[in-house]
Order: sequence, then structure tokens, then C-alpha cells
Amino acid sequence: MTTEAPAASRFSATEYRNRMRRAAAAAAERSVDALLITPSSDYLYLLGYQAPALERLTCLVIPAEGEPSLVLPRLEEPLARHRLGDLADALQVIAWDETDDPFHLVQILVSGVMRVAVQDQMWARFALRLQAAVDPAQMVAAGPTMSSLRRIKSADEVDRLRAAAAAADSAMRTITAERLSGRTEAEVSGHIRELLREAGHETAGFAIVASGPNAASPHHEAGERVIQAGDAIVVDIGGSLAGYCSDTSRTAFVGEPPAEFGALYAVLREAQAAACEAVRPGVPCSEIDAVARDIIEEAGHGEAFIHRTGHGIGLETHEEPYIVASNPEPLVAGHAFSVEPGIYIRDTWGARIEDIVVCTDAGGERLNTTSTELYIVE
Amino acid sequence: MTTEAPAASRFSATEYRNRMRRAAAAAAERSVDALLITPSSDYLYLLGYQAPALERLTCLVIPAEGEPSLVLPRLEEPLARHRLGDLADALQVIAWDETDDPFHLVQILVSGVMRVAVQDQMWARFALRLQAAVDPAQMVAAGPTMSSLRRIKSADEVDRLRAAAAAADSAMRTITAERLSGRTEAEVSGHIRELLREAGHETAGFAIVASGPNAASPHHEAGERVIQAGDAIVVDIGGSLAGYCSDTSRTAFVGEPPAEFGALYAVLREAQAAACEAVRPGVPCSEIDAVARDIIEEAGHGEAFIHRTGHGIGLETHEEPYIVASNPEPLVAGHAFSVEPGIYIRDTWGARIEDIVVCTDAGGERLNTTSTELYIVE
Repeated sequence: MTTEAPAASRFSATEYRNRMRRAAAAAAERSVDALLITPSSDYLYLLGYQAPALERLTCLVIPAEGEPSLVLPRLEEPLARHRLGDLADALQVIAWDETDDPFHLVQILVSGVMRVAVQDQMWARFALRLQAAVDPAQMVAAGPTMSSLRRIKSADEVDRLRAAAAAADSAMRTITAERLSGRTEAEVSGHIRELLREAGHETAGFAIVASGPNAASPHHEAGERVIQAGDAIVVDIGGSLAGYCSDTSRTAFVGEPPAEFGALYAVLREAQAAACEAVRPGVPCSEIDAVARDIIEEAGHGEAFIHRTGHGIGLETHEEPYIVASNPEPLVAGHAFSVEPGIYIRDTWGARIEDIVVCTDAGGERLNTTSTELYIVE
Repeated sequence: MTTEAPAASRFSATEYRNRMRRAAAAAAERSVDALLITPSSDYLYLLGYQAPALERLTCLVIPAEGEPSLVLPRLEEPLARHRLGDLADALQVIAWDETDDPFHLVQILVSGVMRVAVQDQMWARFALRLQAAVDPAQMVAAGPTMSSLRRIKSADEVDRLRAAAAAADSAMRTITAERLSGRTEAEVSGHIRELLREAGHETAGFAIVASGPNAASPHHEAGERVIQAGDAIVVDIGGSLAGYCSDTSRTAFVGEPPAEFGALYAVLREAQAAACEAVRPGVPCSEIDAVARDIIEEAGHGEAFIHRTGHGIGLETHEEPYIVASNPEPLVAGHAFSVEPGIYIRDTWGARIEDIVVCTDAGGERLNTTSTELYIVE
């Protein structure tokens, strides 16, 4: 038996009822007749608790019209009812036994629907079984519907993102004040995870420490390399606090950086600041990406900025909206996302600066408050 | 940016080449023209490293005929090549840029195929996009193909399961020798996670501590309840070591158990032992379930044994074969699975005993070696 416990402090039952109603309305707007939501951050968003993603089907069924139902294995029922509390009254809870066919139970609930949307990360084995059982004219991903709700953060949600950012900043301040040379990336990474937890994170999701040539790989994992004089070090850390994610990157240098690196970093810092400054309602996501990219390209490093500028953040580290050239979507108040340009020179060094920014009516609010200067460390 | 690091020590590049060849052959046997494998334990099984499951498509394409390809985002390429090592020579590595359509790249690789199998836990959003792009006559789940390989453990894999079981046993021995009353379930659970890590687990996946009435809920999560005299306590723990999973349950009682509980436990222990004894090649999985269930039913507790008897285990805690009434599959040497009957009396108490058992030509080998007696604790 296994269990998972992503701890998200719950909002009120009324809040989750309203979210389910808004999800039904958002589905109707997209001509989706029913949403099928398996355990995931969407499930957490709608019901306020995380169910384990197991080989037994658990599925929240939200029809565009009518009351939602929760189909789940009998042995998960006691825990689900405990977690749902009052919210269980807003749902038809249907527990299935080991010899039942849960896909047939879902089929009965949505029989005759034309267009069904399944949760984006639903396991393909479930999606294919549901496709066969429900036999809708069309099965689509529920991502656009769910994301239309989740991408606009409420004031309460922004408060949680702010608290998560403050906790990550606390860890970042500590680590950038320590001596790093002579330590392995893995040791520093482990220490950062402890710092993230000490600062209140319930999970320390990641602590990238990429030193020297490793800094040129955006997703490098901390390894056994010993940090040494002359290294650039990209530190990219985060986790979740009260269910909401943090994600911030800073770059350090062991000793005095060569002029070439200093110049590169100045370009990066200018690009990152300009992109943050450009945030306000109505500006397309692609424009935020372009602001950062243009500055880096003009300085001759365009080829070295090998990823998009940012990603939305909330219950998940990566969610909508994406700050990328291909996304023309205009920003609106309540969007929360990373602004994290980077410059990567293969086999040599790299740098990245990342803040979480919330779009407000008054412009962008940076949730991270540590200095974006290059940290000179021993 | 995020990263994940499920540490599985690698076998040789030759072993992974052979696994990919066997996967292609197993696909062909099922008239599957191509396997599409996204990051998952199947991906880990085939390539020996775990890639992060991100919103950018990473997909291993194994045609029934021809060489495999790995489609992945450009920024994951350096790390993937580093992890693959020599194995990269056995693959066509196709890196895609942010403005490319990765689904089209997969379509080109498998154009004209009739029957495509997608990894079981592939995100539905990817499966639906691949379905639209590749447009096969049929899309099925790759689970049966992959599982036909993974369910038969090699001697090396059994060694790893044995090491993981020994580490979990070490934690179980320590915790069942401690005073438990006066401590919260959550505190004991946290301590068990430390013990699992100290014993060598790279992840302490779960540590269920279900006391008193909570013991009646098979998937109870450790909470703030304070353990007290007269409690039955189900302890169900596990994690992974060198990539392979442990999972074992024992039941403790605070003080002398009432005769009623002692009788119930004796039935459970007899049922669990009989099911372990029944393991040998050729016996259907359903029969192992029946051996345990019949004994519990005859004692009048049939209604209280509310789950199947067991699940396969390997790279995942839950995998094929399942030891359940509906599975007529005969056991073969190399099958590894849990035998874990339980008896749950709502609002009162519960008990479970769980061992990992490997089917060998000589019968069942229990990998867990702690006593299955009821542990009397303070």
C-alpha cells in the first residue's frame, strides 16, 4: 500500500463548490459536456485534497449541467470523505468494489454526451478506457478549461505564492552568503533542501546547483562535481508551501568574475529587469519574452538563450500562462509566472536570474525580493 | 525550472539494448507496430535513467521493426546524453526546439503504422495529440507489452528487491521495538521515514501509521492522533533502494490485546502464511488471493477483508501481477509481489501483514524476514 500527502491547506467548502460551478460554466463555454478529472493538481484545485494516483480509477465527473459526482475505489472512500468534510454534500460519491467496472460507472453518469474533456495528466490507460466506454464524438484535453480558472489567482492564492517566495528567498539568502568552493554540488543542493524545509516548505521540490561548465545546462542536476574558484554557479530552487509553489534562481561566482562574464551577466540582468518592468494587463506573453530576448540578442548572445522566458506557477511549478514567443495571450491581473532568462555558453559557464512576478492592475509585482546582482562567493 | 532525481543505479548499456529489443519483439507479438514511451518507470526500465515528466514532450519511439528513436526537448539533450552514455549510440536522438511541433516529429517516425501503443501513464494531453498527429487505426495502452517484460524479474532485479526489503525490515525492527504510546502517528511516521533513509533507501515513499480506529482504513495517512493503550497499529512502510521498491506491513498492539483481537489476528496470520506457502509456478494469482480469503471468510471476517491480497512490485510499488480474484494468470518464476491480507473492523481496529514474495521454481521466497507475530508495544 502506498500513500501520498501533498499538504495543501484547504480553503472553505464554499470556495470549492464555487470552483466546481465555475469549472462547469467554463466547460459549457467550450461546448464541453463533461469534465473527467483524475487525481492531479486540477483535482486538488477543485476538491481541496490530493488523492493518490493509483491504478484504481478515481474520477471527479463535472457535467456542464447538473451535479458533480466522485467515482472512487471503495477502500479510498473513508479517507476521501474525511478530507472532503462538508464538501461531500455537494457531490454524489460513488464507491466501486474490486469486481466493478469503474469505467462503466462513469459511462452511466455521462451517457449520451458528445464532447468529453479529460484531465491533462490523466493516465493514457484511463483515457483510452474512458474513450471506449463513454464513446463520445470527441475527447479533448481539459487543460484549457481548467487553466482558464487556475491561471487567474485570487488574492488568497497570491498571498500563498508570496509566502512561498519569501521562504525560498530566505534559503537563497543563506546559501549565497556561504562559502561554496570545495563543496560538491550535491552537498550544497542537499543543504538547500534543508533550508527550504526549515523556511516552511512542506516539500523541497528541487535545488539545482550547476557549477562551472555544468551551469551551461539549464536542467543540470546537482552532482559530485566540486565547486572551485572561477566557477559560475546557477542556483535554481523551489518547493511548495501551503500547497503553492516557489521557484527562484540566482547566479553566483566563485571569486572575481572575468570581465567577459561580468559583461554577459550585466546583459542578462538588464534583460530580466526589463521583462519584469514590461508586465501589465494587456501585454501579450510573447511580448514579455521578446523584451528579454531582444536585449540578449542585441548583445550577441541570442543563440545562448535556449529556452523560453518563463512559465506560470501556482499549485504546480509549471502551468499556464507560458511566457514564450508562440503565446500571444494578453496578460491579465492575477497571472503569476516566472521571468527567468538565461545565457548558456556550452562547456564554459552559464547564468540565470528568475523571479516570480504577479500581474496586477498597477503592473508587475515581483514576489522575490533578493538582490539580482551577481553573488560573489568564496 | 524543476528537476527530479529518482536514483536508479544503472545496469549495463547492453542490458538496456536487450530490453529495447525484447520490447520491440513483445510489441510485434501483440500486433503493435510502435511503442511510444514517455518518462515513467517503463522509460526508466528501457533507458536506465528517469527523465522529468514535463509539459514538453519527451518520447522514446520503439518500432516493432527498426531502430528506436528518442524525441526530446533541446534543453534536455545534454543531460539525456550524459545519462545515456554509450546507450546513446543505440538510439536516434532527435532534439526539438521550442518552435517545433514534437508530435509531428513522432508522426514522421511512425508514419503509416496501424496500431500504436502508448505508455500507460502517458499524460492524456500527449496521448490525444499523438492520436491526432499519428492517426493510427488503433491506439492502445502499452501496459500489457511492457508488463510482459517487467513482470519477470531477472536475478539482478531480485537481488535489488531483496536489498530493499532488508532495509525496510531494518526500519520495521527498530520501530516495533520502540515505545509508541503517547506519540502522534505523524511523529512515528516521520521517524520511520528517517529510519528508511538511514537503512539506505533513496526515497522513503510512504510510512503509514494507522492507530486505533484509524487502523480500520487501509490507506489512512499518519495524522495528529496520539497513540494510546488498547490501540492496534498498522505500520505499512516502504520506499526505493537502487531504484527498486520495498513495501512491508506489520501490526502492533499497545499493551495486552483483548482476546477478540488476538483471535482475529491469529486468523489473519494463518491466512497470510497460507497464501505465501501456496506460491509456486503455475498457480493462478486468483488462487493465492482465494487461499487467504477463504481462511478469513471461514472465520467470519470475509466482509472485513476489503481489498485484494497483493500487487506486483519492482521499479514501481504497484505493478503487475495483481493478486486478485479477477486475475487468472498463472505465476511464473521471477514474479515478485506482495501478500498482504488485512482485516478491518470499522471504527474499532484493523490489522494487516505484508511480505514481498518472489516466485521461484522451488516455491515462494519471502524477501521480508521480520516476525509476523503481533508486536506488543508500550
